[in-house]
Amino acid sequence: MLLGGIEAGGTKFVCAVGDSAGTIMERITIPTTTPEETMPRVFAFFEKYELNAIGVGSFGPIDVNIDSPTYGSITATPKLAWRDYQIVGKLKQRLSIPIGFNTDVNAAALAEATFGAAKGLDSCLYITVGTGIGAGAVVHGKLLQGLSHPEMGHILVRRHEKDTYEGKCPYHQDCLEGLAAGPAIEARWGQKAVNLDGREDVWEMEGFYIAQALMQYILILSPKKIILGGGVMKQKHVFPIIYDHLKKLLNQYVVLPELGASIDSYIVSPELGDNAGVVGSLLLADQAIQGK
Amino acid sequence: MLLGGIEAGGTKFVCAVGDSAGTIMERITIPTTTPEETMPRVFAFFEKYELNAIGVGSFGPIDVNIDSPTYGSITATPKLAWRDYQIVGKLKQRLSIPIGFNTDVNAAALAEATFGAAKGLDSCLYITVGTGIGAGAVVHGKLLQGLSHPEMGHILVRRHEKDTYEGKCPYHQDCLEGLAAGPAIEARWGQKAVNLDGREDVWEMEGFYIAQALMQYILILSPKKIILGGGVMKQKHVFPIIYDHLKKLLNQYVVLPELGASIDSYIVSPELGDNAGVVGSLLLADQAIQGK
Repeated sequence: MLLGGIEAGGTKFVCAVGDSAGTIMERITIPTTTPEETMPRVFAFFEKYELNAIGVGSFGPIDVNIDSPTYGSITATPKLAWRDYQIVGKLKQRLSIPIGFNTDVNAAALAEATFGAAKGLDSCLYITVGTGIGAGAVVHGKLLQGLSHPEMGHILVRRHEKDTYEGKCPYHQDCLEGLAAGPAIEARWGQKAVNLDGREDVWEMEGFYIAQALMQYILILSPKKIILGGGVMKQKHVFPIIYDHLKKLLNQYVVLPELGASIDSYIVSPELGDNAGVVGSLLLADQAIQGK
Repeated sequence: MLLGGIEAGGTKFVCAVGDSAGTIMERITIPTTTPEETMPRVFAFFEKYELNAIGVGSFGPIDVNIDSPTYGSITATPKLAWRDYQIVGKLKQRLSIPIGFNTDVNAAALAEATFGAAKGLDSCLYITVGTGIGAGAVVHGKLLQGLSHPEMGHILVRRHEKDTYEGKCPYHQDCLEGLAAGPAIEARWGQKAVNLDGREDVWEMEGFYIAQALMQYILILSPKKIILGGGVMKQKHVFPIIYDHLKKLLNQYVVLPELGASIDSYIVSPELGDNAGVVGSLLLADQAIQGK
């Protein structure tokens, strides 16, 4: 089976042709501008192949409810050009093949559960901390979905006692994403996260917020593995800070984990690195063929 | 199939004999004292019947990991007489039939999803607010479980600006349960919740905490229905207060719900009332036979 995968991100579309074993034969990157500019290049890339299906892991929020009249569209995004864009409908119209559809973070969670850091587990949580914060979860071997897809980046956190920054989320101001995503770090400290490497105060605060989020995710979902990805989490020195805060917060109420010798092996970096999203999209394509 | 169900609660065991349609033929209530006192009465009740299986919905935390050497036991409970008690092992030894095992709140969630307020849905969340706060969830038609069962009652919340009460949770002090369960209400206001009926300040604060919890649950799990049970939630006048806070908190970021005309029909009381736990235990028995 020849599959297509689209990691439809807010700044770029990564398109790949590959298979359900996660092998990528060809890939291109296309800037995310408007549907009128971006999508013709997407079509042109895929039309060179005889594909059996395409999977889309998209920035959100998106409509993943198969019974909804707007299924397959990007919904309340602040990127106005893409609001209500029927990405699944347009792909289907053009290529007449099954189209899988989910969030970019759910695609990455699926890829890490299938080939990566949570391989062999029927449960994991993938979190990305970058220009936004999002998470996808695999529960009983399937992507978590209910009324809609999760929006875990917007959970409430308690403020750090030294944090006077008001928060950047247009909906909730000082939710997790509003206080701990890359743009919030930059607005609070006056520099991009990548340039704040040696600043202990920066990462102590960041670790405090991420640990609070992990506590909520653990108490609510009890994932078997937590994978922390995204640009901000490339600063590996923040991991031990997160562990310390998390241990204090949970206070031994939950035993973490029987899965490994230490908490360090419960919370890990993505094994697929920046490929998680696009490999996950290939898996969404495979699921679309199987009618999952 | 004749099934047994045990709702093993912290103050009483409700034992029932019935079937997988949720019909109860006989039930008794036994006080939860020590295993030495309580369990012989449980055995005596069930030994009158030729049962095919028994399901146990237990107070927690419990070990639900089938691969664990301590599977089927009650673990870090503050009820010392029951700590490390192998309830599944003892029942199996005595009755030699399949034993289903999960938390009391998961049992209730399963019952409400099968026969109650979430009937026909493959996803729901059941929350009880009483002497403690706990929740169980059905995801893709199955009880949510990962590393262990969820412990949703202990999530962090932001303090109400007028709340000076320090919190009652022995692990986390001012987590949700520490601030909003029945004993916290009583300690803060000097009277049991049931006697604080007309006190606007009491229920405004309670609604504020429960709404925060619902926001976190919705953003992380996206349940198709939320069922709010337990003693404290019998005060129905708190529901509109919860809705108001929740709407403000979510700020239209998540559309709730396409399931009904209003948010009121998304968050409901249990349809099975106080029977949810024991009916769910019968369903756990049925699942044990089917090897689920």
